[in-house]
Amino acid sequence: MGAIDDLVAEFAKLPGIGRKTAQRLTYHLLHQPKERLTRLAAALEGVRARVATCPQCGDYCEAARCEICADPRRDGSIVCVVEEPSAVAQVERSTSYRGRYLVLGGRLSPLEGVGPDQLRIGLLRQRLADGEVREVILATNPSLEGEATATFIHQLLVGTGIRVSRLARGLPVGGDLEYIDGVTLSHALEARREVS
Amino acid sequence: MGAIDDLVAEFAKLPGIGRKTAQRLTYHLLHQPKERLTRLAAALEGVRARVATCPQCGDYCEAARCEICADPRRDGSIVCVVEEPSAVAQVERSTSYRGRYLVLGGRLSPLEGVGPDQLRIGLLRQRLADGEVREVILATNPSLEGEATATFIHQLLVGTGIRVSRLARGLPVGGDLEYIDGVTLSHALEARREVS
Repeated sequence: MGAIDDLVAEFAKLPGIGRKTAQRLTYHLLHQPKERLTRLAAALEGVRARVATCPQCGDYCEAARCEICADPRRDGSIVCVVEEPSAVAQVERSTSYRGRYLVLGGRLSPLEGVGPDQLRIGLLRQRLADGEVREVILATNPSLEGEATATFIHQLLVGTGIRVSRLARGLPVGGDLEYIDGVTLSHALEARREVS
Repeated sequence: MGAIDDLVAEFAKLPGIGRKTAQRLTYHLLHQPKERLTRLAAALEGVRARVATCPQCGDYCEAARCEICADPRRDGSIVCVVEEPSAVAQVERSTSYRGRYLVLGGRLSPLEGVGPDQLRIGLLRQRLADGEVREVILATNPSLEGEATATFIHQLLVGTGIRVSRLARGLPVGGDLEYIDGVTLSHALEARREVS
């Protein structure tokens, strides 16, 4: 069964989808009206054909610039530096940020051969050079490599007069003290805020 | 971001895939070479265009008949009756069956309005009418509805001289007695075999 096996094989290449799940997804789609297959295929094709990288911030975009860079209401004096486009989507979902972004396209990782030249550090320097930016928020991941990347960028900014901030560490909302790791807890203790 | 959101929405319609997973899959594919998107789209399109239902057994096929019905080396005197095409794939994977199949296309379920007319009972009768079949293996699911379906087909075959068998119940290989339900265990006890 060539076509069915092909689809199972393609699904099984996706992260977190094993052979069993790939089969389940394929048989599920075979049970659906045929336009479901067409619509998923068209959505994939749409992403392939229309999604490019924004030359101003490195996020994904479907036009000459991404929607955020093209939006005149966004505050260009703040730049939030993230590792990946998915982080932009996450910060946007919080709806509490009205500045712009810079997507590095990864994190410093000497073991994986990722140095500053593999990231969009040049694009960041360019953004800072035009003088509009007054604050850089370092929103790299709270991992070892994310921290190293943030520290590296912080060093670049020392002496430029640009404010540098980092996302706060602490307890996640809805979290349970019992399951919080010690490092997070010590961050939460250090950064404790007085109740007024 | 139309194209990305569209793909997330299509992925999220698949069973067991929530919004978070759909986003992860989409961003994963965006990170891959673009031909990955094309290949998954082509595999979906291939299934839509090429997969039909075999008129002899009800399984999925990509030609006038499915590969099993078209294979002269398969034993036409035994028919394994299953609910869904996925069960054919499962039995084939066991590699211990050389007969043919009949895919009912579901199970009897009065609550969901599925009676004998909604299943391929007519196709089964037709198959039995040509006189080649000597044994029918009832391989419906070990659920309440699967049992009812098997009993219904068994009734049809009473007095025809055709042998009717069911898949054995018992402990799954690799299972642990601690986690086996009581009904399975009582089946396993009843059908216990003497060690020679």
